[in-house]
Amino acid sequence: MLDSLFRPRAVAVMGASNNPLSIGHIVVKNLKTYGFRGEIYPINPNQPEILGLKAYKSILEVPGAVDICCIAVKNVLVPQMVDECGRKGVKFVIVHTAGFREMGGDGARLEDALLETARKHGVRVYGPNCQGIMNSDPDVSVYANFTFTPLNRGKASIIGQSGGVAELINLNLRKMGSGFRIYASHGNASDVSTNELLDYLGHDPGTHTIMMHIESMKDTPGFIERCRKIARNKSVLAIRTGRTQAAATAVSSHTGSLIQQDSLTDAIFERAGVMRFHTAEEMIAAGYALSNQPVPSGPNVGIIANAGGPGIIAIDECVLNGLNLAQFSEETKKKLRDGLIPEAYVENPVDVAATATPEHFSLTLDLLNRDPNVDAILITMVTPPFVDCEGLARSITEASGKMTKPILVCVQTNENWAGTVAIIRNAGIPVYDYPETASRALAAMARYGEIRKRLAEAPAQAKGDKARAGAILAGAKAGFVSQAAAFDMLAAYGIPAAKTVSVSREPAALPEVTFPAVLKVDSEKIVHKSDEGGVVLNLEDGDALRNAFTDMSGRFPEADFVVQEQCPAGTEIIIGIKREEGVGPVMMFGLGGIYVEMLKDVSFCMAPLSEADAGRMVRKIRSFPLLQGGRGIAPSDIAAIEQVLIRVSRMAQDLPEIGEMDLNPVIVYPEGRGVKVVDARIKKQ
Amino acid sequence: MLDSLFRPRAVAVMGASNNPLSIGHIVVKNLKTYGFRGEIYPINPNQPEILGLKAYKSILEVPGAVDICCIAVKNVLVPQMVDECGRKGVKFVIVHTAGFREMGGDGARLEDALLETARKHGVRVYGPNCQGIMNSDPDVSVYANFTFTPLNRGKASIIGQSGGVAELINLNLRKMGSGFRIYASHGNASDVSTNELLDYLGHDPGTHTIMMHIESMKDTPGFIERCRKIARNKSVLAIRTGRTQAAATAVSSHTGSLIQQDSLTDAIFERAGVMRFHTAEEMIAAGYALSNQPVPSGPNVGIIANAGGPGIIAIDECVLNGLNLAQFSEETKKKLRDGLIPEAYVENPVDVAATATPEHFSLTLDLLNRDPNVDAILITMVTPPFVDCEGLARSITEASGKMTKPILVCVQTNENWAGTVAIIRNAGIPVYDYPETASRALAAMARYGEIRKRLAEAPAQAKGDKARAGAILAGAKAGFVSQAAAFDMLAAYGIPAAKTVSVSREPAALPEVTFPAVLKVDSEKIVHKSDEGGVVLNLEDGDALRNAFTDMSGRFPEADFVVQEQCPAGTEIIIGIKREEGVGPVMMFGLGGIYVEMLKDVSFCMAPLSEADAGRMVRKIRSFPLLQGGRGIAPSDIAAIEQVLIRVSRMAQDLPEIGEMDLNPVIVYPEGRGVKVVDARIKKQ
Repeated sequence: MLDSLFRPRAVAVMGASNNPLSIGHIVVKNLKTYGFRGEIYPINPNQPEILGLKAYKSILEVPGAVDICCIAVKNVLVPQMVDECGRKGVKFVIVHTAGFREMGGDGARLEDALLETARKHGVRVYGPNCQGIMNSDPDVSVYANFTFTPLNRGKASIIGQSGGVAELINLNLRKMGSGFRIYASHGNASDVSTNELLDYLGHDPGTHTIMMHIESMKDTPGFIERCRKIARNKSVLAIRTGRTQAAATAVSSHTGSLIQQDSLTDAIFERAGVMRFHTAEEMIAAGYALSNQPVPSGPNVGIIANAGGPGIIAIDECVLNGLNLAQFSEETKKKLRDGLIPEAYVENPVDVAATATPEHFSLTLDLLNRDPNVDAILITMVTPPFVDCEGLARSITEASGKMTKPILVCVQTNENWAGTVAIIRNAGIPVYDYPETASRALAAMARYGEIRKRLAEAPAQAKGDKARAGAILAGAKAGFVSQAAAFDMLAAYGIPAAKTVSVSREPAALPEVTFPAVLKVDSEKIVHKSDEGGVVLNLEDGDALRNAFTDMSGRFPEADFVVQEQCPAGTEIIIGIKREEGVGPVMMFGLGGIYVEMLKDVSFCMAPLSEADAGRMVRKIRSFPLLQGGRGIAPSDIAAIEQVLIRVSRMAQDLPEIGEMDLNPVIVYPEGRGVKVVDARIKKQ
Repeated sequence: MLDSLFRPRAVAVMGASNNPLSIGHIVVKNLKTYGFRGEIYPINPNQPEILGLKAYKSILEVPGAVDICCIAVKNVLVPQMVDECGRKGVKFVIVHTAGFREMGGDGARLEDALLETARKHGVRVYGPNCQGIMNSDPDVSVYANFTFTPLNRGKASIIGQSGGVAELINLNLRKMGSGFRIYASHGNASDVSTNELLDYLGHDPGTHTIMMHIESMKDTPGFIERCRKIARNKSVLAIRTGRTQAAATAVSSHTGSLIQQDSLTDAIFERAGVMRFHTAEEMIAAGYALSNQPVPSGPNVGIIANAGGPGIIAIDECVLNGLNLAQFSEETKKKLRDGLIPEAYVENPVDVAATATPEHFSLTLDLLNRDPNVDAILITMVTPPFVDCEGLARSITEASGKMTKPILVCVQTNENWAGTVAIIRNAGIPVYDYPETASRALAAMARYGEIRKRLAEAPAQAKGDKARAGAILAGAKAGFVSQAAAFDMLAAYGIPAAKTVSVSREPAALPEVTFPAVLKVDSEKIVHKSDEGGVVLNLEDGDALRNAFTDMSGRFPEADFVVQEQCPAGTEIIIGIKREEGVGPVMMFGLGGIYVEMLKDVSFCMAPLSEADAGRMVRKIRSFPLLQGGRGIAPSDIAAIEQVLIRVSRMAQDLPEIGEMDLNPVIVYPEGRGVKVVDARIKKQ
């Protein structure tokens, strides 16, 4: 556990000096400035005192126990310093120094040496090439970090793989009037990992929300498992950079990690219950709200405005981000009409008018709190010079104290009304500069409510004959299994498929064939069967089948064959699964042919699927309206598609030897008439 | 012209008082506080002096000439006050008072009375229900507005239909360290209109950029014409609220205007050369840069960072918003390698490292300025406590002075480095809090460069026999013209169509028919011809045609018919045009059938089209890859599609009687093999 790291009783600083431009100096200064509750031991062989503190020539001379030693000396000296820390019994070294694995070659070897030394002594390594940690808990108040943002307390913790981005988050959270609980930027993460940090923050009672910056992921299954657990109680937010190819290349040279495809990130985060944001600003705006306000119980927002235009902006942004404009009850509207000025607008958004008084605000807030159609309240207000604005602020904080619905506020103002803003913020109510930002933050809160529900969903139940399918797979060589074997495996999991019979001898005698039939070559060497003349359609009877077989077995002398019932036409879909290295099985769904290949219209989800996951996968593609039907097109059997998704998910879970599976096409028939897999490729890994 | 409004020599204020919570008081105070260079005349029948200024019992007692009279008295008194202003010879009244058309019924009648009175005297009305105007030109310094944002000078002017949104823009522009040139929020806009304001700002030499908030548009053609002219020299930016149905309904009750469909806004703005933004924040970030920095000559950005992570964010955002990461020349890279520290990364983004000095910044900026592959420079910097950050700032401003490429900077810092930020801002270089915001602003600048090019494009040339098509249309009744007439009109404009012959007698004798042929009913009553049995395909010869005709003329005794060559199958597209009321002809393009009807995958553009417009329309749909071909699909004849778009655009321009036209389907053949219109509906209005 990382208790000694985040709640240290003593911190030593190697490289501490009286040069104000040195990192060691700044770390000591930060520890002092922000009131670290433990001991600070500057280490410097040449100076007796640093920043008024007694300095020690070596860590070995320090009198008491040391939990953390911050190291800011030349990179080549670090292994030796770690050795001394080990001999002293230091629990964690925070290596600020850069010039390790991120430089490649010699740097990587130096990092290995450092780790080797640490391991020998049982010292844990945080970094190298990292900013450090902070914990704003007043019992600890540790700022073991060389950066420059003042410590502001808050309920959101920050994990930043890049120090610069962690700083970006922290600085702007502070500009919004909030702060952090724990801050961890761990650079090369050679030992203490993102997952360990997540474990710790998940258990930290002061952390209500976790905000992460991720550049690359290690141990993705572990990440998913932890986040799923944490996100049931605490919101977990993330931005992932390196979304474009150009940026991914730069990340790779910046951190020495492998390039990871961004297309997987959404599927991983969805599975993990992590809320993804595309800008730091949007993440901060949402994290600020999530760490301070209750989660709305539904998507219905009531908006209160004292200027019309910004209220309209709020509607647009709320609705475009998935919220609903609440329909007020008749009672609410009547009481608003009675209590507000005649110029007020008593539909949603309530426009209380610029002249509205604190009493008008109180009345409106109270009515919206009582109205069961309202799940959350958004206020957009200006600070008119002819109104008691601090009174408005107090009416908001008083109302907030009486309700379990979240309140978010956009205050359009300037520094002369700082007192008004402070009253609202000090009550734990987030204040934003823009109605758009407040609306998006509220939408994110509702999204978190949905995530909590999703995390409680059980994996869908699907019966499968694991033993039978496993035996088929066990009998196959690595690579693509035969068509016959693949269809047998589908049958073992009850996945509806065209009746398919293996043929290796004169086929006229096959009693099980259903006509009209299709003869297909079955060879792992022939991938595009149709293109290579390996499929004959419309075989009406045994004679036709025999003739086709004679012809084809001449053309493909080495191959096996299958005879398949010829299915009627329908809508073609593709269902696939790929076991991504270091991630796990990822399912894919899309309409067949051009929709997948040319329009890239596919949805992904990590297995195992819940019933609801399957429903979402089908509905997420842009071309979903074609399955939904209408305008002369019959609705497709969506329930049957979902069943195939669920059974394929089950197969992937049961049989880790399946590396890839592609059901392409699966023919979908109208509602109630099912689906049939026509072609299946399963790759054993 | 609005010179007396924006550059007044004397402003009177009716409703001025010593009550600090009255609007009249605040207007007088603002005029005084911000140093209005002309005369201020408070008007109040009961008080001799207001805020130290002599007050007059009536405007008629004011000694000198009055350009503007601000009116903040009870709504029912306003017409009488305007009458007095008229008698005094006041040029403009700014009516702050609310309670007019926005209230409906009596309010609308009061507004009419006010306008009637003003017209009688030749007084221009600004408002009612409005904040007012401001002009920050030091020669004028007029703040005839009751709002509360301090006057900060800048080069961007603001037009806000909603005072609350105009304020939002102004407040946040100021928070970014910038300000406005002219500010105009004109409320109900009963007389002085958005278009007149645009005219004025277009000619104002101090206005470099115009930022607008639009809720509803009046005189859209006039808006487009003005903006197209202005946007060649000054960027015009806008947000339009009421994008969702819920918000549009609220706008309508807020302003009394009709609900306008948001789907037209993109087409209108594109034609007008107006840059649309979806949040006020993004508009402000872009307007701040556009009003202060040169427009980049291309999309290639060079990024400089002193912390890796934020530089990576900048790449993502730049690339995702249409910019390219510049490829540095070998010379640039070599000199960076020689001049920076070994840990620096000398590809793009250049990571100069946190320890970088002012000299490192100067060197890098100079090299990127010289490199012809770089069109714009984006800097993301932290302010390390161990670096001379003001020196970094000065190296940026000095470099900026020597270059014509734009520089935008994201500074991650706090209030202790306010001096560093001020140095950069005072040189006219925008500073942002987030790398995302800076990147998007830069992308918007490049987009403006594209708009300027687009505005210089000539309408595409297309010959058409206007006289012949006009005569056909003149001979038709209002409503859908006959198929035969529609195909004749297409022929007059050289639009390739299936050969189509009108039949009203025994058809076997028709010499012009090409077999195989199709017989179609031609009646405006029968819209879905195929569904109603009005189409017979595959007529191989005269006998077949005659038989089909006998049958169909029995079933449709009142109708006419056409015989059409049966075109081979191909990709089906739809080309349409609709003359939108108060807007003009809007063209539509999409792939036929499900793509338009179910997937809503269409592009719009206002006529007349340039060659490039036609190209963009085709490429804008999501399903464009299907026309582009590949993966076994032949590329379609895109040039032929563009030609049809251009000719249809020409027709719409030539023949304003065409209310609607739908070419559906048009069959597209592979490259070089053209297109053929198979069905055409033209509605005469």
